[in-house]
Amino acid sequence: MTTQPTAAPEPWRDAAADPADRVRALMDRMSLREKLAQLYGVWVGIDSGGEMAPHQHDFVDADVDLDDLVRHGIGQLTRVFGTRPVDPLVGAHSLARRQRQIVSSNRFGIPAVVHEECLTGLAAWQATIYPAPLSWGATFDPDLVRRMAARIGRTMHTLGVHQGLAPVLDVARDLRWGRVEETIGEDPYLVGTIGSAYVAGLESAGVIATLKHFVGYSASRAGRNLAPVSAGPREIADVLLPPFELALRAGARSVMNTYTDIDGVPGAADPALLTELLRDTYGFTGTVVSDYFSVAFLHRLHGVAAGRGDAAGQALTAGIDVELPTMDCYGEPLLAAVEGGAVDAAAVDRALERVLRQKCELGLLDAGWAPEVPEAIDLDDAESRALAREVAEKSVVLLHNDGTLPLSPGASIAVVGPRADTPGAMLGCYSFPLHVGVHHPDVPFGVSVPTVAEALRSTFEVTYALGCPVTGGDDAGIAEAVAACEDASVCVAVLGDRAGLFGGGTSGEGCDTSDLRLPGRQEELLEALLATGKPVVVILLSGRPYELSRQLPRLAAVVCGFYPGEEGAGALADVLTGRVDPSGRLPVSFPRAGASQPSTYLSAPLGRRSEVSTVDPTALFPFGHGLSYRPATWVDVSATGSLWPTDGVCRVRVTLRNDHDRATTEVVQVYLHDPVAEVARPERQLIAARRVVLAPGETSVLDIGLHADLTSYTGRAGGRVVDPGDVELRVGTSSEAIVTTLHCTLTGPRRSVGFDRVLAPEFGA
Amino acid sequence: MTTQPTAAPEPWRDAAADPADRVRALMDRMSLREKLAQLYGVWVGIDSGGEMAPHQHDFVDADVDLDDLVRHGIGQLTRVFGTRPVDPLVGAHSLARRQRQIVSSNRFGIPAVVHEECLTGLAAWQATIYPAPLSWGATFDPDLVRRMAARIGRTMHTLGVHQGLAPVLDVARDLRWGRVEETIGEDPYLVGTIGSAYVAGLESAGVIATLKHFVGYSASRAGRNLAPVSAGPREIADVLLPPFELALRAGARSVMNTYTDIDGVPGAADPALLTELLRDTYGFTGTVVSDYFSVAFLHRLHGVAAGRGDAAGQALTAGIDVELPTMDCYGEPLLAAVEGGAVDAAAVDRALERVLRQKCELGLLDAGWAPEVPEAIDLDDAESRALAREVAEKSVVLLHNDGTLPLSPGASIAVVGPRADTPGAMLGCYSFPLHVGVHHPDVPFGVSVPTVAEALRSTFEVTYALGCPVTGGDDAGIAEAVAACEDASVCVAVLGDRAGLFGGGTSGEGCDTSDLRLPGRQEELLEALLATGKPVVVILLSGRPYELSRQLPRLAAVVCGFYPGEEGAGALADVLTGRVDPSGRLPVSFPRAGASQPSTYLSAPLGRRSEVSTVDPTALFPFGHGLSYRPATWVDVSATGSLWPTDGVCRVRVTLRNDHDRATTEVVQVYLHDPVAEVARPERQLIAARRVVLAPGETSVLDIGLHADLTSYTGRAGGRVVDPGDVELRVGTSSEAIVTTLHCTLTGPRRSVGFDRVLAPEFGA
Repeated sequence: MTTQPTAAPEPWRDAAADPADRVRALMDRMSLREKLAQLYGVWVGIDSGGEMAPHQHDFVDADVDLDDLVRHGIGQLTRVFGTRPVDPLVGAHSLARRQRQIVSSNRFGIPAVVHEECLTGLAAWQATIYPAPLSWGATFDPDLVRRMAARIGRTMHTLGVHQGLAPVLDVARDLRWGRVEETIGEDPYLVGTIGSAYVAGLESAGVIATLKHFVGYSASRAGRNLAPVSAGPREIADVLLPPFELALRAGARSVMNTYTDIDGVPGAADPALLTELLRDTYGFTGTVVSDYFSVAFLHRLHGVAAGRGDAAGQALTAGIDVELPTMDCYGEPLLAAVEGGAVDAAAVDRALERVLRQKCELGLLDAGWAPEVPEAIDLDDAESRALAREVAEKSVVLLHNDGTLPLSPGASIAVVGPRADTPGAMLGCYSFPLHVGVHHPDVPFGVSVPTVAEALRSTFEVTYALGCPVTGGDDAGIAEAVAACEDASVCVAVLGDRAGLFGGGTSGEGCDTSDLRLPGRQEELLEALLATGKPVVVILLSGRPYELSRQLPRLAAVVCGFYPGEEGAGALADVLTGRVDPSGRLPVSFPRAGASQPSTYLSAPLGRRSEVSTVDPTALFPFGHGLSYRPATWVDVSATGSLWPTDGVCRVRVTLRNDHDRATTEVVQVYLHDPVAEVARPERQLIAARRVVLAPGETSVLDIGLHADLTSYTGRAGGRVVDPGDVELRVGTSSEAIVTTLHCTLTGPRRSVGFDRVLAPEFGA
Repeated sequence: MTTQPTAAPEPWRDAAADPADRVRALMDRMSLREKLAQLYGVWVGIDSGGEMAPHQHDFVDADVDLDDLVRHGIGQLTRVFGTRPVDPLVGAHSLARRQRQIVSSNRFGIPAVVHEECLTGLAAWQATIYPAPLSWGATFDPDLVRRMAARIGRTMHTLGVHQGLAPVLDVARDLRWGRVEETIGEDPYLVGTIGSAYVAGLESAGVIATLKHFVGYSASRAGRNLAPVSAGPREIADVLLPPFELALRAGARSVMNTYTDIDGVPGAADPALLTELLRDTYGFTGTVVSDYFSVAFLHRLHGVAAGRGDAAGQALTAGIDVELPTMDCYGEPLLAAVEGGAVDAAAVDRALERVLRQKCELGLLDAGWAPEVPEAIDLDDAESRALAREVAEKSVVLLHNDGTLPLSPGASIAVVGPRADTPGAMLGCYSFPLHVGVHHPDVPFGVSVPTVAEALRSTFEVTYALGCPVTGGDDAGIAEAVAACEDASVCVAVLGDRAGLFGGGTSGEGCDTSDLRLPGRQEELLEALLATGKPVVVILLSGRPYELSRQLPRLAAVVCGFYPGEEGAGALADVLTGRVDPSGRLPVSFPRAGASQPSTYLSAPLGRRSEVSTVDPTALFPFGHGLSYRPATWVDVSATGSLWPTDGVCRVRVTLRNDHDRATTEVVQVYLHDPVAEVARPERQLIAARRVVLAPGETSVLDIGLHADLTSYTGRAGGRVVDPGDVELRVGTSSEAIVTTLHCTLTGPRRSVGFDRVLAPEFGA
C-alpha cells in the first residue's frame, strides 16, 4: 500500500476501533522519514523565557532545528523539566505549546511521548524528593513504595509527562559501583518485590514505568561504571533477571537496555536478551528504549559497529525500539542505512508498531487529543511530603546500639560531620538539584530540605561543627569538631557521601570507588571524636555501605539513613529521640573487609569461607539486619509439614508477640538453604519477607505460603528446575540471625518451570 | 571376559606389544578394588629414620595402613620428598624400597606413579630453587624456560619422580589473588608460549607435566582463593583456555582441575570441560588428576554432592581419572558406589585405561622394571644454579630510572627494608622451604640463598637496617632505617611480600589481599626514606604488583624482581651495578589505583576509560614495560603488505640497531587492535613477542610471520572466527609504548577455526 493523501478520513483517530487496526492504518500512510521520527527522542529544555529549546550536551549533536524536525513528528521529548529550574506551571504550559505545534506540524497529528527521570520522585524543580531506592529496600514494605510511586505518577501526569525512567532493577553486586544508591539492594527477591510495587504504583497513575537496566549493569567489572561484565547464563537467570520478571508481571510497559556488555555482547545489540528473552519468552509487548547514548556507544565504546548507521541497525534489529535521548543514530544515519539496504525496513516497522500502539494506548492518537494544563500546580504538597516522611521513617536502619539511643531528653549534642548540616546530604544523585547540579551548581533546591542538625535543634541543645568536608579538609576543622564534642554529653557524627554525577560526588552515576573506606578524612574525624571518650553516634548518609570494622567496638550507636530524602532529617531525629522506633532492615550487607569486592550475601559457600583465604568475606552487618528499640518476641515458628510436594505449597506460621507498651515492627525473613543441588547455590537466599506491625501486647500469627517454585534454580541443563530433596527454611530477623530452621523435603518428580512459575509467596494472618 | 588366574603368562609386561593390548590384558584380570587402587594417591612422607610413612594432614584421613593398601596396588604416591627435609639419597632409597614393596605386593606388579610439586624447581630439600613463574614471564624467553624445565625434569627423574604438578597456566585476572605469583602473567599468549616451553622441557626429561588449573581458578571472585567464578564462555575461550591449547600441543600428559565453579558448575564435576572439551575437542589422551581434596570439596564446599561416594561418582563421570592427594573419595566410598550400582563400572574402566596406558608409556609395566637409585645425588649442582642465575638475570624488570642506576662504583648504600636481608625474600610460595614451612617453620633451606644486602656488599659499602618487617613493625625500626639512609649516598629499599601458604604469608596460596597497598608499614617506611631527600631505589620482591602511584614521582628508580630464586640476589646486584643490562618485561600491569580489581591490560575499551568513572583503570606501568640501560634503536617497522588473506600470513619486519658499545636486548612486541568486531574485544592484545639480543653496533632484522588465525576470536555464534576487515598491528616495546602502527585489511571469506588453528607466530631473522 502506498501513502494516502492526508485529506482522507483518519481511521487511526477512532478511539473505538481496534488499536491494531489504528496503528496499521497509520503505518501504511507514513514515509520512512516519518516512521523513523517516531523512533527517537529530542532532548529539550525550557529556557529562562519559558520557551522549549534544544538542550546542549557534550554527547549531543548541537545542530537540532526543532521547528524543522516537527514536520516529521517526534517520538519522544527528553527531560523537558529536567535540565534547569523552571516553574512547573510555566513548564507545563511551555510543553503544551510545543505539543500543539508537534501535533499540528506532522501529517498525522501525533504528539510526542514525554519522559522524565523519577527515581527519587519526579526529577523536576519544586517536586517532592523522596528517599533513594536503597531506602525503599530498607522499608521491606512494597505497599508503601507502591503508594509513593502512585503519588509520583500523579505528579508526572499533572505536568504532561507520560513515561518515567524508573525503577532501577539492577541487583547490587559490587558495592564500589557508584550506582548502588540507585538499586533497591543486593537480593533479587527484595529488588523484585519492591521494584514491582513501584511499577504498579507508577502505572496506576497512567505513567509508563521503565525497567532498567536490562541486564547486567550492576556487575560492571570492579564496580567501574560501564565496564564489561563477566557473567554466565546461570548468574544472569538466577540473580539478575528475577526482578525484571516480577516487574513485567506488575505491568511495566517499557524496558531500557544496559550500557555494558556481557561476555563481549553489548546489551544494546543483543537480540538474545531484547527479543528472544524479553519478547518471545516473557511476552513483553511494550517498548524498549535505549539508555542515553548507548546506541552510539556501540560504535564509540564497544567497537562492534562501524559507524552510527551500523550501530542503529544493530540496535534496531536486536530490539531497541526508541533511541534516547536524541536522534544521533536513529535519525539521518538510520535513514541512510535503510535506504541503502543495509537495514531491513521490516525492523523499522516492528519498532514503529510498538511505539504507535503505546501512543494509542495512552490516548495520544485519539481524535481531539490536546494537552491539558491545570490552573495551579503544587509538586510538593502536604500529601506528598507526608509520604516522603513515611518512607523515610520506615527506612532508617539502626545497625548498632549500646543503649545510648534513644538519646536522653536533656542531652547536649555535638552534631558534627560533613553531612550534618547540608540539605544535599539527604538526597540521591537522581534528585533534581543534584542531577541538574552537574551543569548548574547554583540550582536552588526548590523544596525545603531540613538537615539533621536543624531537626535535632528542635529537641536538643545542639552545637554544630563541620569537622571536615566529604573530601578534603584540614586539621583545624577536625580540632573544632573535637572541641564541640568535648563540650557535649553525646556526639552525633553525620558522615557519608556527596551524591553526584560523573565526578561531582563520591557516590552516584560515574562516582565509583576502589574501596569502601569513608571518603576523604571522615575516618580520621571519627577516630578523633572517639578519642574524646564521649559516646559517638554515627549517622551514615551514603549511597553505599562503608567499612566501619575498625571503629565499631568503640561506637555508641550506628544509624544508617542512606539518602532519606527531603523529609529524612525529621525521620532521623525522631529515631534518635525515640519518637519513631527504627524498623528499617539492610538491603545490602556491610562488609567487614571493604575492598574485597564484589561480595554480597548471596554467595555460594566457597564465596563465604575464610579458612582458605586471608581475606575475610563475611559481613559486619548482614543483609536483612536492623535493630528495634522494642524487639518483638518470637513465640513460635512452624511449618505445616516437613513434606513439600515439588508442585505444592509449604505453609510457614510465625507467631510474634509485642511485650512492650508501644507498637513495634518486625520484618520476618525466610531464607532457603539447599544443602545438595545440581550446581553451587547461594548458602542462603531470601524467598519471603514480611513487615509486621504489632500493637502493644498484640500476638500476631503470620501465615506464609511458599510454593515450591520459590526453591527453583537454573540446573545443569540450563533450564529452571524444582529439585526434590532436603531443604532448610531458615526463619529469622536477618540473613544471619536465624530464629528457627525448618527442615523440609521436597517430594515428587523433578519439575521444569519457566516464566510462568510462582515468583512470590502468599501472606496471610 | 572374567578374571584370569595370575599364574598365566603376563602379557602386559611385553614391552614390544601394543600398549592398548597390554592395558586391556591387565584390566581384564583386575578386581574392582584393584582397579580403584590405580585411581588414587596415597600421601606419604619420609620420616626422620628414612622410612616412608603416611603423611598427616588436616584434610586427610589419619588411618591409612600403607602395608595393607599395597596389596591392591597404588596409583600414585603423593609428595614423597615434599613434606620434610630429607637427604635426597636417603629419600630416593626409601622410595625405591617402597616401590619394590608395592610391585611385589600387588598381583600384577604395578608400581606407583610418583608425583611432586615443581613450580620453582623440584619442591624437595636441597634442590635448586628457580625464580617463580612471574619471572619466567618477565624473561619473554621460552627457550630459556624450556631449558630450565628440562633441568628440573632431569632432577626429578634422578629421584624416581614421574610426574610434576606444573606449570600453572591460569591467566592472572585479579591481582589480589594470592596465587598470582604462581602464574606466568596476565596475557594468554605469554602464559601459553612460556608455559608450553616449560611443558616441553619437563616432558623432554620423561617427566609428566601437569597443566593446572583447568580452568578458571584465577578469576576467583574478588581474588579470594577458591571463590566462585563469574565468567561467560567467550571469556573462557578467548582468555583462559588458549594457554592450555598451546601446552597440550607441547605434549603435556596430565591436566589438573580447578577448585572453583564457573557459573555454579564446579570444575571437578564438569563433563563439558573435562570430557567434551578436553577429550573430544582437544583429543587429549593423558590423565586428569584432581587438585588436592577437590573431589571431597564437591560435597564439603560446593554442595553438589550428597557425600563422598556421590562426589567420587560425579568427578569420575565428569572425567577426573585420579584422585589426589589421597583416597578419601575414590577409595571405599567409590567402591561402595560402584558395587551399589550408583556409579557405572564403565567409568572406572575409562579412567583406569588412561592410567595404565600412562604407566605403560612410562615403562612401569615392562618386565624387569625396578627402581634405580644413583650412587650420588646433587640436586643443586653448578649447572642448575647457573640456569637459575640466567633466568633471574633475564627476568629483572627496570620499571623506572632517573639515572641513579647503574649505581656509581663508589656509592655508599643504605640497604633497608624487610626483604633486604632474608633469604626467604627470594623465594615463591611453592619453593620447598616456604611450602613446607607451613608445618615446619624451622626447616633449613638446604640450598644457599644469598640476600640482596649480601650481594651488594661484595661491591659497595653497605649499611643495613630492617626498617619494618613485612607486616607489623614499630616507629623505632623506621627511624633506624631513616638514620642509615641519611648516612648513605643512596638508599636501596627492598620491599615486598613474604610468600607463604594459608595465612603464612602476604602472597601465595590462600594469601589474598583486598587491595594493592604494600603490606604492613612498608609504604610508611618508604615515605620516611623519601623524606630524607636521598635518592631512593626500590627493589620490589613480591608475588604481585603493588601500588606505587603516590611515591613514583619522587623515586630514583624502581626494580621489580618478583621472586627471583636462590640466585636472584646476585642477579639484582648485577643489574644495580650495571654488570647486567636489565631486560625483563612486565608480565602483569602495575595498576594506578590498586584496589580497583579485577583489572588487566586485556580489557575492552569500556574497561579502560575513566571519563565515565571516577576510578582510574589505567596502568602505572603497563603490561610489557621494562627499561634498558642501553635501549635499542628502532630503525624500521614494516609489513609485507596491507592486504592479509583470512587464511594467510602477514609478515612484519622489524629492524633494530644497537648503537652502544656493549650488547643490549630488546623485546619486540606485536599487539592486535581490531576496531570493529562482532563482540567487544580487548583494545589491544599481544599476538607476538620476541626477545632479541644485539651485539655492539649490530643491526638485526626480525621477521615475524603472523597467520590470520592469530586474529581469531569467539564470535557471536559461539565459534572462533577469522573476521575480514581492518585491523591494526601495533608494534612496540610495551602494550602502551607503540613504535609503529601497521594498518592491515583482512581479506577474503570469514573463516571458522578451531583447536587446529595456528596458535603462535613464526619468527625468522
